[in-house]
Parts: sequence; C-alpha cells; structure tokens
Amino acid sequence: MTRTIPLFLAAAALPGLAQPLLKSPEVHSDQSVTFRFRALNAKVVLLDREGAKRAPMQQDERGVWSLTTDALEPDLYGYTFVVDGTPLIDPSNPLLKPNLLNTQSVVHVPGAGPWEAGDVPHGILHRHFYKSGVVGDQRDFYVYTPPGYNPNATPPYPVLYLLHGYSDDASGWTAVGRAHVILDNLIAQSKAKPMLIVMTLGYGAPEILSNGRRGINAPDLRQRNYDRYRDALLTEVIPQVENAYRVAKDRNSRAIAGLSMGGAESLFVGLNALDRFAWIGAFSSGGLNEDFNAAYPALDAKANSQLRLLWIACGKDDGLIGVNRKLDEWLKAKEVRHAFTETAGAHTWMVWRRNLAQFASLLFQAKPE
Amino acid sequence: MTRTIPLFLAAAALPGLAQPLLKSPEVHSDQSVTFRFRALNAKVVLLDREGAKRAPMQQDERGVWSLTTDALEPDLYGYTFVVDGTPLIDPSNPLLKPNLLNTQSVVHVPGAGPWEAGDVPHGILHRHFYKSGVVGDQRDFYVYTPPGYNPNATPPYPVLYLLHGYSDDASGWTAVGRAHVILDNLIAQSKAKPMLIVMTLGYGAPEILSNGRRGINAPDLRQRNYDRYRDALLTEVIPQVENAYRVAKDRNSRAIAGLSMGGAESLFVGLNALDRFAWIGAFSSGGLNEDFNAAYPALDAKANSQLRLLWIACGKDDGLIGVNRKLDEWLKAKEVRHAFTETAGAHTWMVWRRNLAQFASLLFQAKPE
Repeated sequence: MTRTIPLFLAAAALPGLAQPLLKSPEVHSDQSVTFRFRALNAKVVLLDREGAKRAPMQQDERGVWSLTTDALEPDLYGYTFVVDGTPLIDPSNPLLKPNLLNTQSVVHVPGAGPWEAGDVPHGILHRHFYKSGVVGDQRDFYVYTPPGYNPNATPPYPVLYLLHGYSDDASGWTAVGRAHVILDNLIAQSKAKPMLIVMTLGYGAPEILSNGRRGINAPDLRQRNYDRYRDALLTEVIPQVENAYRVAKDRNSRAIAGLSMGGAESLFVGLNALDRFAWIGAFSSGGLNEDFNAAYPALDAKANSQLRLLWIACGKDDGLIGVNRKLDEWLKAKEVRHAFTETAGAHTWMVWRRNLAQFASLLFQAKPE
Repeated sequence: MTRTIPLFLAAAALPGLAQPLLKSPEVHSDQSVTFRFRALNAKVVLLDREGAKRAPMQQDERGVWSLTTDALEPDLYGYTFVVDGTPLIDPSNPLLKPNLLNTQSVVHVPGAGPWEAGDVPHGILHRHFYKSGVVGDQRDFYVYTPPGYNPNATPPYPVLYLLHGYSDDASGWTAVGRAHVILDNLIAQSKAKPMLIVMTLGYGAPEILSNGRRGINAPDLRQRNYDRYRDALLTEVIPQVENAYRVAKDRNSRAIAGLSMGGAESLFVGLNALDRFAWIGAFSSGGLNEDFNAAYPALDAKANSQLRLLWIACGKDDGLIGVNRKLDEWLKAKEVRHAFTETAGAHTWMVWRRNLAQFASLLFQAKPE
C-alpha cells in the first residue's frame, strides 16, 4: 500500500520539487520577456514563439536554458520550448493555449488592446453539450451573451457564429482568442452592437485530425468535413441557439466568420446560404477549395443585394496570403462586393484577435435593406 | 520579414514535426496503457501518474521513452513525465488537467463510471466574470444548470457550492472533476435531485500561490485566504447567483462542499454559518486549522437540529487521513452528528469524483425540518 502525501504538504520530499522553482516567463517593465526551462542533459533547446523564428536558448551551469527577447508589443503569444526536436510547454507557466494537435504555453505582455480584461460590464459564457446526429458524437458549443443580456429584449439580439481553425477546439476563440473580452470592451465603448457569439466545434468529420496534420490537405476528407460541419451548424446548433436565447432569426441579424479552416468554412457555408447569412467574415482562410467556381457555384453580382458585408483579411506575412489574394481577384471578376484587407502579421492569433475586433465593430451596424 | 507557413500546410518543413508522431497515451483493450515520450538526451525519465508511485520509463534506440502499465481501473488519471527532474506534460496528448502550479496530462481509461459522458440530457455550464471588491481582482465562477433547467420552476432549485483544492482554479471541478457529467448522469438515473452547482475561485488571498507551495502552510496567510474567500462567497457570489438563477434562498436548499483546501474552506464557512448552509461536505480536507475549538468556536450538539448532513470523507492512503480522523474524533466528542467515510485511495481526483457522486446523491433528499 502506497500512502501518497499531498504536494503542498511535502514539497521537499518530492525529487522534482526539490529543484528551485523557475520564474518563466518573466515579463520585464520594458516589455522584453525572459523564458527559462530546466533541461540538464538536452543538447539544443529552441524557443518557438508565435509569429517569430525559432531561436536558440542558452544553458547555464545549473542546467537552466534561457532567452530574453527584445521588447514585445503588448499581446498574448503562444510558445513552446523545442527540446532536442520535441516541442514542450513551459512547466513553470499555467497559462495554456488548448489545441488538439499542439498545446502551447502563452505569455501575456500587458498593455492596451481590446483583449485586456477591463473594469467594464462582462458578458457570460455558456457551454452547451449535445449529441450530434449529423456527426455521431457528443460535442459542445459556447455561447457568449453580452453584458446585461435580457431574455425579453426587443428587438432580439443579432448573432455571430464564430469558427475556429484546424486543430483548435470549441474553446479556442475564448481561451486563446478572448472573444468574450474583446466584445465586452467594444460594447462598453459603443464600438460594437450588443450581440451573441456562438462558438461551435468546427469538425464535421473529426477523423480529419487523426492522421497527424495531413487530413486538412486531403480534398475528399476536407470537403466531407465542411459538408457535415455545415449540416451540424444549420440543423443542430442554430435551432438550439434560437430556441434557448432571445435572438433574431432573420438573415440580417445573422453573421458567420472564422479563422483559417474556419474562414474556409465560413465562406463555404455563408456564400452558399445567403438566405441565412447577410454578414460573412474570413480571417487568414486556409484549406480553401481553390476551384472557387465549384466552391461557390451560384455566387455572382446578384449577391450584392443580399450581402451586407463580405470581409476578407489576411496577414501579409502569412503563407496563405497568395490564395487569399486569388480569392479577392476572383470575387472582383465576379463583381461580388467585398472588403479585402491585408494586415501586418502572419498566421497567428495576434492577427485574429485584431481581425475580430475590427469585424465585430462593423457587424449589424448599417440599416437593413 | 519572416513569412510563416501554417503548420498544417508544411508539417515536413518544420524540424520538430519531421519526427514521426508518437501515439501517447495508448489505451489497450485490456485497460493497460502505454505512455511514450521522445527525449533523445535525457538520462532518467519517470512516469508520475496520479495515485501511483513514480516509475522509470525505458528508452529505445530512437530516443523514445516508454512504459506500459498493468491494467488500470477505468477512470481519468493525471500524469507527467519527469525528465531529469523536470515534470512535463505529454506533448502527444491534448487532454490536460489545468492547474495553477502543476499542469498535468490526463489519460482516460474508458469504462463504467458516473464521469463518463453518456447519451443522457445534459445541463449547461455558465461562466461568469466579475470584479471582486473583497479580493480586488477580476475573477470568474462557473454555474451548472441541470438538464431542462426552467427559470420559472416551482419550487426553485437547490444549490451546491462546490470548492476546488489548492492550486486548482475555478475550472477544476468541471475540467478535471467532471462535476457536470456526474450530475447529468445521476439526475438521469434519479439518483440526485436536479440542482445547480456553483464553482468559485477558491482564493481569498491569491498571494497564497505566489511562494511556490509554501503558502498553504503559513497559518496567517492561510487564514486570511479563508476569511476573504468566505466574504467573497457570501457577499459577492451568492447574491449574483441568487439574482441570476431560479434558486431557493433558504438554508435547507443550500449546500457547501469541497476537496482538500476546499474541504477546509467548506467546513470553515459552513460550520460557522449554519444559518445559511444545512448541508456540508469535506473531501480529503487539507490545510485545516487543527485547533478545531478555535476554527469552529460555536459548534456543539445544538448544531444537530440545523445540520441536515455533515459528510466527511478521506482516502485511507491519503497523507491527510490522520488529521481527518482527528476531526472525526473531535466531532464525536462534541456530539455533532456527522458521517465519516474512509474510502479506498489517496489524495487524487479518482477519489473526489466518487466522493462527489456519493455526496450529491444524498443532497436535498430528506424532508425539511
């Protein structure tokens, strides 16, 4: 019989904990950050930080590897330590970026930004669970209700369906994207209309994840993933949301947007269902069907009378900028009205948090047709 | 200018990902589990699994360390790989146990158990955010509403305030404890009354976490932590819950229970506020003020007319069994009616999930006084 001793009563008795605790990450007053990681026998430890090149860390005589960055722009950055080729989170840091294929740690460089939790009224996050008949699994979705949400409000609230990227889960837009914080702040400043945000699990064919990272590049599997995602959204999630919350059910009050794979899904679902969605956003779209004529067969200039906003953005340093430029050209050739924004940045959450803040401020603002 | 390539488009181009993907953990049909971890240059890698002794893993010629367990009882087990003294999560496994001091991975050995998500009606988890005047920070709490929750129900619902342990956060009882799944299942089987569960952040003095694991053993800081936690619960959280949800506000409809530090807090708050709580539970209590006369100064046999249930449990293999037995003896000497249950197991979530299932099935069941 083994009698275990709770950690907090016997730290010194456990070999791992007898090591001095490391402070990592340490954010300095000049916005530089020191990362530290103990790996006595590793040969090469690299810092892999979101949006930056991998950089070698240096080992001291105690076996602690460290690196101090230049001053970083205030933001949240994912990172891992790549230890002799294996990416690892920072064991000194409880702040994580959940992901189904690669968990990362997160460092917060505080400053101004709509993702900073402020002393403003807060909305509520509701996590729903249900069995999907379309997909055949137990799954979840999150609903953000804005500060002061009133179940008897007139008019009812508009809704943004907000989709995550490949390898994220339904928690991505809140845990990493801070969508709830961004909306709290925008609403407090009257920069966004009070709205609900629904964040689903974006896999219609979850097996797309099971073969490492190759599933998203297999066209048949990818299309099955999108088809079933659309069916689950339209026939399962939206009816549950519209039954449980005080939301408007007309197309002018319904938006769909997403990042990366979720951008491709938003375009696929939204542009083929303009009777349901008048507002569409796509941030750094990836996994697009590049045969746009096949992907959006009925789309032409007639859509301009239905589309209140088609907002496409991509970072200039994103490997996906090329395909997004092609989409922009194709939409121009089709004379489909849209906004195409090339921002600074790469394929990162720093870009997508800003995309959301900008897109949300445009939503549901103009007069109905 | 660095152009980054999204992971899913260029796995082979990234050195860390050029390594073959490892399957870990691999749960076999006989309920044994193989853990795998790549660490080319490590000297000693131990598997640290919740409720088990640390066990050495073996390295193969490719640098992969592995260990296959005996058959494990169906459950969820936290674990880390301790690599030359540094505890690390399993980078092949997205399932995590969030914790403010030591993040762990989780392996799920499927089977029967009330924590297994079933094809039953599901409740909803609501995450609230607010600024605490008592503590002076922005914080959150979670509310579970049962399946079919009706905001106009008569009678109103009873509420269990459910407290986490030292180093957990407000998500612990759902992310690790699966309290929502357990209640969904118990309610579907008519083994528990439909109730709300409120899961708070259990730190009245969050600086208790800042000095490694020593804060919980410093009596003054610990008491300040408990005092302010009580004040935040009674004056901030309970009023918000009772304002936002259809809940009964009488003591017979209010329970408080917790694990480890949360057990000590439940006893401290509950036994000193029998006018508010008729049902009290304490699982594997730790960080108790062992001067019980000082901790519960007014408690004596007169409490028996107010206490509907005082339920104290501890695992026989828990290092805290001694102090819990002392508490049992003291309550007997005081002639305070209570149940004291010594279960199998140690200071682990496997024990606490079972504790919750047993305790919840007793709550709000008997007739009011």
